[in-house]
Amino acid sequence: MSAESQAFKLALCQMLVTDDKTANLEKAADFLRRAKQADAKIAVLPECFQCPYDTACFRAYSETLPDPPYPVSKQHESPSLKVLQDLAQETGMYIVGGSVPEISEGKVYNTSMTVSPTGGLIAKHRKTHLFDIDVPGGIKFKESDALTAGDSATAFHIPELSLTAGVAICYDMRFPELAMVQARQLNASLLIYPGAFNLTTGPAHWELLIRARALDNQVFVAACSPARATSGDGYKAWGHSMVVDPWGKVVASTEEKESLVIADIHLSRVEQVRKAIPTSKQRRRDVYTLEYLK
Amino acid sequence: MSAESQAFKLALCQMLVTDDKTANLEKAADFLRRAKQADAKIAVLPECFQCPYDTACFRAYSETLPDPPYPVSKQHESPSLKVLQDLAQETGMYIVGGSVPEISEGKVYNTSMTVSPTGGLIAKHRKTHLFDIDVPGGIKFKESDALTAGDSATAFHIPELSLTAGVAICYDMRFPELAMVQARQLNASLLIYPGAFNLTTGPAHWELLIRARALDNQVFVAACSPARATSGDGYKAWGHSMVVDPWGKVVASTEEKESLVIADIHLSRVEQVRKAIPTSKQRRRDVYTLEYLK
Repeated sequence: MSAESQAFKLALCQMLVTDDKTANLEKAADFLRRAKQADAKIAVLPECFQCPYDTACFRAYSETLPDPPYPVSKQHESPSLKVLQDLAQETGMYIVGGSVPEISEGKVYNTSMTVSPTGGLIAKHRKTHLFDIDVPGGIKFKESDALTAGDSATAFHIPELSLTAGVAICYDMRFPELAMVQARQLNASLLIYPGAFNLTTGPAHWELLIRARALDNQVFVAACSPARATSGDGYKAWGHSMVVDPWGKVVASTEEKESLVIADIHLSRVEQVRKAIPTSKQRRRDVYTLEYLK
Repeated sequence: MSAESQAFKLALCQMLVTDDKTANLEKAADFLRRAKQADAKIAVLPECFQCPYDTACFRAYSETLPDPPYPVSKQHESPSLKVLQDLAQETGMYIVGGSVPEISEGKVYNTSMTVSPTGGLIAKHRKTHLFDIDVPGGIKFKESDALTAGDSATAFHIPELSLTAGVAICYDMRFPELAMVQARQLNASLLIYPGAFNLTTGPAHWELLIRARALDNQVFVAACSPARATSGDGYKAWGHSMVVDPWGKVVASTEEKESLVIADIHLSRVEQVRKAIPTSKQRRRDVYTLEYLK
Protein backbone atom coordinates (compact mmCIF):
# COMPACT_ATOMS: atom_id res chain seq x y z
CA MET A 1 0.00 0.00 0.00
CA SER A 2 1.47 3.37 -0.98
CA ALA A 3 1.69 6.32 1.37
CA GLU A 4 -0.71 8.14 -0.94
CA SER A 5 -3.41 5.54 -0.49
CA GLN A 6 -3.08 5.98 3.26
CA ALA A 7 -4.36 9.56 3.12
CA PHE A 8 -8.08 10.12 3.55
CA LYS A 9 -10.60 12.65 4.79
CA LEU A 10 -12.34 12.38 8.13
CA ALA A 11 -15.48 14.36 8.96
CA LEU A 12 -16.71 15.49 12.37
CA CYS A 13 -20.42 16.29 12.34
CA GLN A 14 -20.85 18.97 15.00
CA MET A 15 -24.64 18.98 14.87
CA LEU A 16 -27.11 20.59 17.25
CA VAL A 17 -29.03 18.00 19.23
CA THR A 18 -32.57 18.78 20.41
CA ASP A 19 -35.19 16.83 22.33
CA ASP A 20 -36.84 15.73 19.06
CA LYS A 21 -35.35 12.30 18.35
CA THR A 22 -36.72 12.04 14.83
CA ALA A 23 -35.43 15.49 13.94
CA ASN A 24 -32.04 14.58 15.43
CA LEU A 25 -31.82 11.49 13.25
CA GLU A 26 -32.77 13.53 10.19
CA LYS A 27 -30.15 16.12 11.10
CA ALA A 28 -27.54 13.37 11.48
CA ALA A 29 -28.43 12.00 8.05
CA ASP A 30 -28.11 15.48 6.58
CA PHE A 31 -24.66 15.97 8.11
CA LEU A 32 -23.56 12.53 6.91
CA ARG A 33 -24.59 13.36 3.34
CA ARG A 34 -22.60 16.60 3.58
CA ALA A 35 -19.62 14.60 4.85
CA LYS A 36 -19.91 12.38 1.79
CA GLN A 37 -20.01 15.44 -0.46
CA ALA A 38 -16.76 16.54 1.19
CA ASP A 39 -15.32 13.15 0.21
CA ALA A 40 -14.98 11.80 3.74
CA LYS A 41 -14.04 8.18 4.24
CA ILE A 42 -14.94 8.20 7.95
CA ALA A 43 -17.67 10.37 9.47
CA VAL A 44 -18.19 10.84 13.19
CA LEU A 45 -21.36 11.93 14.99
CA PRO A 46 -21.32 13.47 18.47
CA GLU A 47 -22.01 11.82 21.80
CA CYS A 48 -25.77 11.49 22.35
CA PHE A 49 -26.63 12.59 18.82
CA GLN A 50 -30.30 11.56 19.08
CA CYS A 51 -30.94 12.39 22.76
CA PRO A 52 -30.49 15.38 25.07
CA TYR A 53 -27.47 14.97 27.32
CA ASP A 54 -29.60 14.60 30.42
CA THR A 55 -29.82 11.68 32.85
CA ALA A 56 -33.62 12.14 32.86
CA CYS A 57 -33.72 11.37 29.11
CA PHE A 58 -31.39 8.43 28.63
CA ARG A 59 -33.86 5.63 29.34
CA ALA A 60 -36.67 7.22 27.35
CA TYR A 61 -34.45 7.61 24.27
CA SER A 62 -32.72 4.25 24.68
CA GLU A 63 -32.79 1.51 22.05
CA THR A 64 -31.90 -2.16 21.94
CA LEU A 65 -28.73 -2.65 19.92
CA PRO A 66 -27.35 -5.90 18.52
CA ASP A 67 -24.67 -7.75 20.46
CA PRO A 68 -21.53 -9.32 18.95
CA PRO A 69 -20.35 -11.26 17.05
CA TYR A 70 -19.73 -8.55 14.44
CA PRO A 71 -20.45 -7.66 11.77
CA VAL A 72 -24.19 -7.51 12.35
CA SER A 73 -25.83 -6.95 9.01
CA LYS A 74 -28.66 -4.58 8.33
CA GLN A 75 -31.73 -4.90 10.46
CA HIS A 76 -34.19 -2.44 11.82
CA GLU A 77 -34.70 -3.10 15.50
CA SER A 78 -33.04 0.20 16.40
CA PRO A 79 -34.17 3.31 14.54
CA SER A 80 -30.82 4.99 15.21
CA LEU A 81 -28.80 2.04 13.94
CA LYS A 82 -31.07 1.89 10.89
CA VAL A 83 -30.15 5.47 10.01
CA LEU A 84 -26.45 4.70 10.38
CA GLN A 85 -26.75 1.53 8.30
CA ASP A 86 -28.79 3.23 5.58
CA LEU A 87 -26.42 6.17 5.38
CA ALA A 88 -23.29 4.03 5.42
CA GLN A 89 -24.60 2.07 2.47
CA GLU A 90 -25.79 5.18 0.69
CA THR A 91 -22.53 7.08 1.15
CA GLY A 92 -19.93 4.31 1.25
CA MET A 93 -18.44 5.80 4.42
CA TYR A 94 -17.48 4.30 7.75
CA ILE A 95 -19.76 5.97 10.27
CA VAL A 96 -18.95 6.27 13.96
CA GLY A 97 -22.38 6.79 15.44
CA GLY A 98 -21.38 9.09 18.25
CA SER A 99 -23.41 7.54 20.99
CA VAL A 100 -26.96 6.56 21.82
CA PRO A 101 -28.48 5.29 25.05
CA GLU A 102 -28.49 1.50 24.71
CA ILE A 103 -30.80 -0.63 26.83
CA SER A 104 -29.77 -4.19 27.62
CA GLU A 105 -31.27 -6.41 30.30
CA GLY A 106 -32.79 -3.36 31.95
CA LYS A 107 -29.53 -1.44 32.14
CA VAL A 108 -28.79 1.65 30.07
CA TYR A 109 -25.36 2.25 28.53
CA ASN A 110 -23.88 5.23 26.66
CA THR A 111 -22.93 3.34 23.52
CA SER A 112 -21.16 4.21 20.29
CA MET A 113 -21.84 2.13 17.18
CA THR A 114 -19.61 1.93 14.14
CA VAL A 115 -21.03 0.85 10.79
CA SER A 116 -19.10 -0.13 7.67
CA PRO A 117 -19.94 0.88 4.08
CA THR A 118 -21.79 -2.40 3.56
CA GLY A 119 -24.12 -1.49 6.42
CA GLY A 120 -22.68 -3.92 8.92
CA LEU A 121 -22.36 -2.97 12.57
CA ILE A 122 -18.66 -3.65 13.17
CA ALA A 123 -18.03 -2.24 16.65
CA LYS A 124 -19.84 -1.05 19.73
CA HIS A 125 -18.26 0.84 22.62
CA ARG A 126 -19.99 1.26 25.93
CA LYS A 127 -18.61 4.30 27.74
CA THR A 128 -16.17 2.84 30.23
CA HIS A 129 -15.79 5.78 32.62
CA LEU A 130 -19.02 7.43 33.69
CA PHE A 131 -19.12 11.22 33.95
CA ASP A 132 -19.64 11.84 37.66
CA ILE A 133 -18.14 15.20 38.58
CA ASP A 134 -18.94 18.10 40.87
CA VAL A 135 -16.90 21.25 40.28
CA PRO A 136 -17.92 23.93 42.82
CA GLY A 137 -19.20 26.97 40.95
CA GLY A 138 -19.08 24.99 37.70
CA ILE A 139 -20.59 21.79 36.39
CA LYS A 140 -22.22 19.01 38.39
CA PHE A 141 -23.32 15.86 36.61
CA LYS A 142 -23.81 12.24 37.63
CA GLU A 143 -24.17 9.85 34.73
CA SER A 144 -24.15 6.90 37.10
CA ASP A 145 -27.62 7.96 38.29
CA ALA A 146 -28.90 6.62 34.99
CA LEU A 147 -26.17 4.70 33.23
CA THR A 148 -24.08 1.56 33.62
CA ALA A 149 -20.45 1.52 32.46
CA GLY A 150 -18.99 -0.78 29.83
CA ASP A 151 -15.86 -2.75 30.59
CA SER A 152 -13.73 -2.92 27.44
CA ALA A 153 -11.47 -0.97 25.12
CA THR A 154 -12.80 -0.76 21.58
CA ALA A 155 -11.35 -0.55 18.09
CA PHE A 156 -12.38 -1.38 14.52
CA HIS A 157 -10.37 -2.12 11.42
CA ILE A 158 -10.56 -0.61 7.93
CA PRO A 159 -8.70 -3.04 5.68
CA GLU A 160 -8.49 -0.76 2.63
CA LEU A 161 -6.66 1.88 4.71
CA SER A 162 -4.65 -0.62 6.79
CA LEU A 163 -6.08 1.40 9.67
CA THR A 164 -7.24 0.41 13.10
CA ALA A 165 -9.28 3.13 14.79
CA GLY A 166 -10.12 3.16 18.48
CA VAL A 167 -13.41 4.49 19.82
CA ALA A 168 -14.04 5.81 23.31
CA ILE A 169 -16.50 8.37 24.64
CA CYS A 170 -15.96 11.79 26.20
CA TYR A 171 -14.96 11.31 29.87
CA ASP A 172 -13.05 8.17 28.81
CA MET A 173 -10.39 10.55 27.45
CA ARG A 174 -9.40 11.58 30.99
CA PHE A 175 -8.03 8.09 31.60
CA PRO A 176 -4.66 7.73 29.85
CA GLU A 177 -4.61 3.96 30.27
CA LEU A 178 -7.59 3.41 28.00
CA ALA A 179 -5.96 5.30 25.13
CA MET A 180 -2.66 3.52 25.76
CA VAL A 181 -4.40 0.15 25.59
CA GLN A 182 -6.13 1.16 22.36
CA ALA A 183 -2.88 2.35 20.80
CA ARG A 184 -0.72 -0.54 21.99
CA GLN A 185 -2.71 -3.70 22.56
CA LEU A 186 -5.38 -2.91 19.93
CA ASN A 187 -2.90 -1.23 17.55
CA ALA A 188 -5.04 1.87 16.91
CA SER A 189 -3.36 4.76 15.11
CA LEU A 190 -6.48 6.94 15.23
CA LEU A 191 -8.54 7.48 18.37
CA ILE A 192 -12.10 8.73 17.92
CA TYR A 193 -13.91 10.38 20.83
CA PRO A 194 -17.51 11.47 20.48
CA GLY A 195 -17.77 13.80 23.45
CA ALA A 196 -19.75 16.61 24.99
CA PHE A 197 -17.59 18.68 27.30
CA ASN A 198 -19.23 21.67 28.95
CA LEU A 199 -18.55 25.35 29.63
CA THR A 200 -16.48 24.55 32.74
CA THR A 201 -14.27 21.71 31.58
CA GLY A 202 -14.39 22.58 27.88
CA PRO A 203 -12.24 25.72 27.92
CA ALA A 204 -9.96 24.25 30.59
CA HIS A 205 -9.39 20.70 29.37
CA TRP A 206 -10.92 19.69 26.01
CA GLU A 207 -8.05 20.66 23.70
CA LEU A 208 -5.40 19.78 26.30
CA LEU A 209 -6.71 16.23 26.74
CA ILE A 210 -7.15 15.64 23.00
CA ARG A 211 -3.62 16.87 22.27
CA ALA A 212 -2.19 14.90 25.20
CA ARG A 213 -3.78 11.64 24.06
CA ALA A 214 -2.42 12.29 20.55
CA LEU A 215 1.13 13.18 21.56
CA ASP A 216 1.53 10.60 24.32
CA ASN A 217 0.44 7.81 21.99
CA GLN A 218 1.68 9.36 18.72
CA VAL A 219 -1.68 8.78 17.07
CA PHE A 220 -4.32 10.91 15.39
CA VAL A 221 -7.17 11.92 17.67
CA ALA A 222 -10.58 13.05 16.41
CA ALA A 223 -13.09 14.43 18.91
CA CYS A 224 -16.65 15.28 17.91
CA SER A 225 -18.93 17.41 20.09
CA PRO A 226 -22.52 18.47 19.60
CA ALA A 227 -23.00 22.15 18.73
CA ARG A 228 -23.87 24.42 21.64
CA ALA A 229 -27.52 25.12 22.26
CA THR A 230 -28.21 28.87 22.31
CA SER A 231 -31.38 28.63 24.36
CA GLY A 232 -32.97 26.46 27.02
CA ASP A 233 -31.64 25.42 30.39
CA GLY A 234 -30.22 22.10 29.25
CA TYR A 235 -26.61 20.98 29.06
CA LYS A 236 -24.44 23.42 27.12
CA ALA A 237 -21.81 21.61 25.08
CA TRP A 238 -18.40 23.19 24.54
CA GLY A 239 -18.29 22.33 20.84
CA HIS A 240 -14.79 22.83 19.37
CA SER A 241 -14.72 19.49 17.59
CA MET A 242 -11.17 18.94 16.43
CA VAL A 243 -8.61 16.65 14.90
CA VAL A 244 -5.05 16.50 16.25
CA ASP A 245 -2.11 14.79 14.57
CA PRO A 246 0.49 12.48 16.18
CA TRP A 247 2.81 15.46 16.77
CA GLY A 248 0.11 16.99 19.00
CA LYS A 249 -0.81 19.66 16.44
CA VAL A 250 -4.42 20.71 15.85
CA VAL A 251 -5.03 20.09 12.13
CA ALA A 252 -8.74 20.96 11.96
CA SER A 253 -11.18 22.52 14.40
CA THR A 254 -14.21 24.71 14.82
CA GLU A 255 -15.92 26.80 17.50
CA GLU A 256 -19.30 26.22 19.14
CA LYS A 257 -21.81 26.45 16.29
CA GLU A 258 -23.06 23.74 13.96
CA SER A 259 -20.21 22.86 11.67
CA LEU A 260 -18.81 20.09 9.52
CA VAL A 261 -15.08 19.74 10.28
CA ILE A 262 -13.06 18.02 7.57
CA ALA A 263 -9.49 16.86 8.22
CA ASP A 264 -6.97 15.31 5.88
CA ILE A 265 -5.49 12.33 7.68
CA HIS A 266 -2.07 11.36 6.41
CA LEU A 267 -1.49 8.06 8.15
CA SER A 268 2.19 8.09 7.18
CA ARG A 269 2.57 10.85 9.77
CA VAL A 270 2.17 8.24 12.51
CA GLU A 271 5.28 6.35 11.46
CA GLN A 272 7.17 9.60 10.78
CA VAL A 273 6.60 10.87 14.30
CA ARG A 274 7.29 7.49 15.87
CA LYS A 275 10.58 7.28 13.99
CA ALA A 276 11.59 10.84 14.92
CA ILE A 277 10.77 10.49 18.63
CA PRO A 278 10.75 6.73 19.21
CA THR A 279 9.05 6.68 22.60
CA SER A 280 7.18 3.48 21.77
CA LYS A 281 10.54 1.68 21.61
CA GLN A 282 12.01 3.56 24.56
CA ARG A 283 9.47 2.66 27.21
CA ARG A 284 11.02 1.00 30.24
CA ARG A 285 9.21 -2.30 30.44
CA ASP A 286 11.62 -3.26 33.21
CA VAL A 287 10.45 -0.32 35.35
CA TYR A 288 6.67 -0.24 34.77
CA THR A 289 4.05 -2.16 32.85
CA LEU A 290 0.54 -1.45 31.67
CA GLU A 291 -1.72 -4.46 31.22
CA TYR A 292 -5.08 -4.74 29.51
CA LEU A 293 -7.10 -7.18 31.58
CA LYS A 294 -9.57 -8.28 28.90
CA MET B 1 -1.97 20.81 59.55
CA SER B 2 -4.02 23.75 58.35
CA ALA B 3 -4.62 24.52 54.70
CA GLU B 4 -2.68 27.74 55.18
CA SER B 5 0.44 25.93 56.30
CA GLN B 6 0.29 23.86 53.11
CA ALA B 7 0.95 26.91 50.93
CA PHE B 8 4.55 27.68 50.03
CA LYS B 9 6.66 29.27 47.34
CA LEU B 10 8.62 27.26 44.78
CA ALA B 11 11.43 28.80 42.72
CA LEU B 12 12.65 27.76 39.28
CA CYS B 13 16.17 29.01 38.60
CA GLN B 14 16.29 29.48 34.82
CA MET B 15 20.02 30.21 34.70
CA LEU B 16 22.30 30.38 31.68
CA VAL B 17 24.76 27.48 31.63
CA THR B 18 28.17 27.94 30.01
CA ASP B 19 31.20 25.69 29.57
CA ASP B 20 32.80 27.13 32.72
CA LYS B 21 31.86 24.72 35.49
CA THR B 22 33.06 26.94 38.33
CA ALA B 23 31.16 29.90 36.96
CA ASN B 24 28.06 27.72 36.56
CA LEU B 25 28.23 26.67 40.19
CA GLU B 26 28.64 30.29 41.26
CA LYS B 27 25.68 31.27 39.09
CA ALA B 28 23.60 28.49 40.65
CA ALA B 29 24.51 29.72 44.13
CA ASP B 30 23.52 33.24 43.14
CA PHE B 31 20.13 32.09 41.85
CA LEU B 32 19.55 30.02 44.99
CA ARG B 33 20.23 33.05 47.18
CA ARG B 34 17.74 35.04 45.11
CA ALA B 35 15.22 32.22 45.55
CA LYS B 36 15.68 32.47 49.29
CA GLN B 37 15.16 36.24 49.13
CA ALA B 38 11.88 35.51 47.36
CA ASP B 39 10.97 33.29 50.33
CA ALA B 40 11.07 30.00 48.42
CA LYS B 41 10.76 26.75 50.33
CA ILE B 42 11.87 24.62 47.37
CA ALA B 43 14.27 25.79 44.67
CA VAL B 44 14.93 23.93 41.44
CA LEU B 45 17.97 24.19 39.18
CA PRO B 46 17.87 23.19 35.50
CA GLU B 47 19.03 19.97 33.88
CA CYS B 48 22.83 20.02 33.44
CA PHE B 49 23.27 23.19 35.47
CA GLN B 50 27.06 22.88 35.68
CA CYS B 51 27.78 21.32 32.26
CA PRO B 52 26.99 22.11 28.63
CA TYR B 53 24.21 19.89 27.29
CA ASP B 54 26.56 18.03 24.95
CA THR B 55 27.40 14.32 24.86
CA ALA B 56 31.06 15.29 24.37
CA CYS B 57 31.07 17.06 27.76
CA PHE B 58 29.23 14.71 30.10
CA ARG B 59 32.17 12.53 31.13
CA ALA B 60 34.57 15.46 31.55
CA TYR B 61 32.12 17.30 33.82
CA SER B 62 31.03 14.19 35.71
CA GLU B 63 31.39 13.73 39.45
CA THR B 64 31.13 10.83 41.87
CA LEU B 65 27.95 11.18 43.93
CA PRO B 66 27.05 9.35 47.13
CA ASP B 67 24.85 6.29 46.93
CA PRO B 68 21.94 5.50 49.27
CA PRO B 69 20.96 4.98 52.01
CA TYR B 70 19.74 8.56 52.41
CA PRO B 71 20.17 11.02 53.91
CA VAL B 72 23.85 11.41 53.15
CA SER B 73 25.17 14.19 55.32
CA LYS B 74 27.51 16.92 54.21
CA GLN B 75 30.73 15.83 52.54
CA HIS B 76 32.83 17.30 49.82
CA GLU B 77 33.65 14.59 47.33
CA SER B 78 31.49 16.27 44.67
CA PRO B 79 31.99 20.02 44.14
CA SER B 80 28.46 20.32 42.76
CA LEU B 81 26.89 18.51 45.70
CA LYS B 82 28.97 20.67 48.04
CA VAL B 83 27.42 23.80 46.56
CA LEU B 84 23.93 22.35 46.98
CA GLN B 85 24.61 21.27 50.55
CA ASP B 86 26.20 24.60 51.50
CA LEU B 87 23.36 26.58 49.97
CA ALA B 88 20.64 24.38 51.45
CA GLN B 89 22.09 24.94 54.91
CA GLU B 90 22.63 28.64 54.28
CA THR B 91 19.13 29.24 52.94
CA GLY B 92 17.04 26.63 54.72
CA MET B 93 15.49 25.57 51.43
CA TYR B 94 14.99 22.19 49.81
CA ILE B 95 17.12 22.29 46.66
CA VAL B 96 16.50 20.08 43.64
CA GLY B 97 19.87 20.15 41.94
CA GLY B 98 18.65 19.99 38.37
CA SER B 99 21.07 17.43 37.10
CA VAL B 100 24.78 16.77 36.84
CA PRO B 101 26.68 14.04 35.02
CA GLU B 102 27.32 11.35 37.64
CA ILE B 103 30.06 8.79 37.17
CA SER B 104 29.69 5.41 38.83
CA GLU B 105 31.73 2.30 38.03
CA GLY B 106 32.82 3.86 34.76
CA LYS B 107 29.27 4.66 33.60
CA VAL B 108 27.89 8.18 33.33
CA TYR B 109 24.32 9.04 34.37
CA ASN B 110 22.24 12.21 34.06
CA THR B 111 21.44 12.57 37.75
CA SER B 112 19.38 14.94 39.83
CA MET B 113 20.22 15.40 43.52
CA THR B 114 17.88 16.76 46.16
CA VAL B 115 19.25 18.25 49.36
CA SER B 116 17.33 19.11 52.52
CA PRO B 117 17.78 22.26 54.65
CA THR B 118 20.11 20.37 56.99
CA GLY B 119 22.44 19.70 54.05
CA GLY B 120 21.56 16.05 53.69
CA LEU B 121 21.31 14.45 50.26
CA ILE B 122 17.83 12.94 50.43
CA ALA B 123 17.16 11.74 46.88
CA LYS B 124 18.92 11.04 43.62
CA HIS B 125 17.22 10.43 40.28
CA ARG B 126 19.06 8.98 37.35
CA LYS B 127 17.29 9.96 34.12
CA THR B 128 15.28 6.89 33.23
CA HIS B 129 14.57 7.59 29.56
CA LEU B 130 17.52 8.74 27.49
CA PHE B 131 17.00 11.48 24.93
CA ASP B 132 17.63 9.75 21.61
CA ILE B 133 15.65 11.49 18.91
CA ASP B 134 16.06 12.43 15.26
CA VAL B 135 13.51 14.86 13.88
CA PRO B 136 14.21 15.52 10.16
CA GLY B 137 14.84 19.23 9.67
CA GLY B 138 14.87 19.69 13.45
CA ILE B 139 16.80 18.30 16.38
CA LYS B 140 19.00 15.21 16.43
CA PHE B 141 20.53 14.09 19.72
CA LYS B 142 21.66 10.77 21.15
CA GLU B 143 22.25 10.79 24.88
CA SER B 144 22.87 7.06 24.85
CA ASP B 145 26.17 7.71 23.05
CA ALA B 146 27.48 8.96 26.39
CA LEU B 147 25.00 8.11 29.12
CA THR B 148 23.49 5.13 30.89
CA ALA B 149 19.86 5.22 32.05
CA GLY B 150 18.66 4.83 35.61
CA ASP B 151 15.94 2.34 36.42
CA SER B 152 13.68 3.80 39.12
CA ALA B 153 11.00 6.35 39.84
CA THR B 154 12.06 8.94 42.42
CA ALA B 155 10.39 11.03 45.10
CA PHE B 156 11.32 12.77 48.33
CA HIS B 157 9.28 13.81 51.34
CA ILE B 158 9.02 17.16 53.11
CA PRO B 159 7.47 16.38 56.51
CA GLU B 160 6.71 19.98 57.48
CA LEU B 161 4.59 20.40 54.33
CA SER B 162 3.15 16.88 54.38
CA LEU B 163 4.37 16.87 50.78
CA THR B 164 5.89 14.16 48.65
CA ALA B 165 7.54 15.54 45.51
CA GLY B 166 8.58 13.41 42.54
CA VAL B 167 11.67 14.15 40.49
CA ALA B 168 12.28 13.10 36.90
CA ILE B 169 14.34 14.65 34.13
CA CYS B 170 13.33 16.20 30.82
CA TYR B 171 12.66 13.38 28.31
CA ASP B 172 11.23 11.32 31.20
CA MET B 173 8.14 13.54 30.94
CA ARG B 174 7.20 11.96 27.60
CA PHE B 175 6.47 8.68 29.36
CA PRO B 176 3.12 8.93 31.16
CA GLU B 177 3.73 5.77 33.17
CA LEU B 178 6.63 7.26 35.12
CA ALA B 179 4.54 10.22 36.28
CA MET B 180 1.62 7.91 37.07
CA VAL B 181 3.89 5.74 39.20
CA GLN B 182 5.22 8.80 41.01
CA ALA B 183 1.73 10.13 41.68
CA ARG B 184 0.17 6.81 42.68
CA GLN B 185 2.69 4.37 44.07
CA LEU B 186 5.03 7.07 45.49
CA ASN B 187 2.16 9.41 46.45
CA ALA B 188 3.70 12.54 44.88
CA SER B 189 1.45 15.60 44.60
CA LEU B 190 4.17 17.72 42.97
CA LEU B 191 6.29 16.52 40.05
CA ILE B 192 9.56 18.36 39.42
CA TYR B 193 11.24 18.12 36.01
CA PRO B 194 14.58 19.77 35.42
CA GLY B 195 14.62 19.75 31.61
CA ALA B 196 16.19 21.27 28.54
CA PHE B 197 13.84 21.05 25.58
CA ASN B 198 15.06 22.62 22.34
CA LEU B 199 13.81 24.88 19.56
CA THR B 200 12.10 21.99 17.74
CA THR B 201 10.33 20.17 20.56
CA GLY B 202 10.09 23.16 22.89
CA PRO B 203 7.45 25.18 21.05
CA ALA B 204 5.61 22.00 20.01
CA HIS B 205 5.57 19.96 23.20
CA TRP B 206 7.04 21.52 26.36
CA GLU B 207 3.93 23.20 27.73
CA LEU B 208 1.62 20.48 26.40
CA LEU B 209 3.52 17.72 28.19
CA ILE B 210 3.82 19.66 31.44
CA ARG B 211 0.11 20.45 31.46
CA ALA B 212 -0.79 16.89 30.48
CA ARG B 213 1.26 15.36 33.30
CA ALA B 214 -0.40 17.83 35.72
CA LEU B 215 -3.99 17.29 34.59
CA ASP B 216 -3.79 13.52 34.07
CA ASN B 217 -2.39 13.02 37.56
CA GLN B 218 -4.06 16.02 39.21
CA VAL B 219 -0.75 17.17 40.67
CA PHE B 220 1.39 20.29 40.50
CA VAL B 221 4.16 20.12 37.91
CA ALA B 222 7.25 22.35 37.99
CA ALA B 223 9.65 22.26 35.04
CA CYS B 224 12.95 24.15 35.09
CA SER B 225 14.96 24.81 31.92
CA PRO B 226 18.29 26.53 31.44
CA ALA B 227 18.10 29.96 29.81
CA ARG B 228 18.74 30.04 26.05
CA ALA B 229 22.26 30.81 24.91
CA THR B 230 22.31 33.77 22.53
CA SER B 231 25.60 32.84 20.89
CA GLY B 232 27.71 29.80 20.06
CA ASP B 233 26.77 26.67 18.16
CA GLY B 234 25.85 24.61 21.21
CA TYR B 235 22.46 23.26 22.25
CA LYS B 236 19.79 25.96 22.37
CA ALA B 237 17.38 25.41 25.24
CA TRP B 238 13.73 26.38 24.88
CA GLY B 239 13.55 27.99 28.32
CA HIS B 240 9.94 28.70 29.35
CA SER B 241 10.31 27.24 32.85
CA MET B 242 6.84 26.94 34.30
CA VAL B 243 4.61 25.70 37.07
CA VAL B 244 1.22 24.15 36.31
CA ASP B 245 -1.50 23.39 38.84
CA PRO B 246 -3.56 20.17 39.19
CA TRP B 247 -6.30 21.70 37.00
CA GLY B 248 -3.76 21.96 34.15
CA LYS B 249 -3.46 25.74 34.43
CA VAL B 250 -0.13 27.52 34.05
CA VAL B 251 0.34 29.47 37.30
CA ALA B 252 3.85 30.86 36.68
CA SER B 253 6.14 30.94 33.66
CA THR B 254 8.79 32.86 31.78
CA GLU B 255 10.27 33.11 28.29
CA GLU B 256 13.80 32.18 27.17
CA LYS B 257 16.06 34.55 29.10
CA GLU B 258 17.60 34.13 32.54
CA SER B 259 14.81 34.40 35.06
CA LEU B 260 13.75 33.38 38.53
CA VAL B 261 10.21 32.02 38.37
CA ILE B 262 8.34 32.07 41.68
CA ALA B 263 5.08 30.17 42.10
CA ASP B 264 2.71 30.01 45.03
CA ILE B 265 1.87 26.36 45.58
CA HIS B 266 -1.43 25.84 47.38
CA LEU B 267 -1.34 22.13 48.10
CA SER B 268 -5.00 22.14 49.07
CA ARG B 269 -5.68 22.58 45.34
CA VAL B 270 -4.72 18.94 44.79
CA GLU B 271 -7.52 17.63 46.96
CA GLN B 272 -9.97 20.22 45.62
CA VAL B 273 -9.41 19.10 42.03
CA ARG B 274 -9.43 15.41 42.94
CA LYS B 275 -12.73 15.88 44.73
CA ALA B 276 -14.28 17.86 41.86
CA ILE B 277 -13.19 15.42 39.12
CA PRO B 278 -12.51 12.19 41.00
CA THR B 279 -10.61 10.32 38.29
CA SER B 280 -8.29 8.71 40.81
CA LYS B 281 -11.29 6.87 42.24
CA GLN B 282 -12.90 6.22 38.87
CA ARG B 283 -10.08 4.33 37.21
CA ARG B 284 -11.14 0.91 35.95
CA ARG B 285 -8.79 -1.43 37.73
CA ASP B 286 -10.85 -4.31 36.33
CA VAL B 287 -10.07 -3.18 32.75
CA TYR B 288 -6.39 -2.12 32.93
CA THR B 289 -3.61 -1.99 35.47
CA LEU B 290 -0.36 -0.10 35.75
CA GLU B 291 2.35 -1.75 37.84
CA TYR B 292 5.61 -0.33 39.15
CA LEU B 293 8.13 -3.15 38.95
CA LYS B 294 10.60 -1.90 41.55
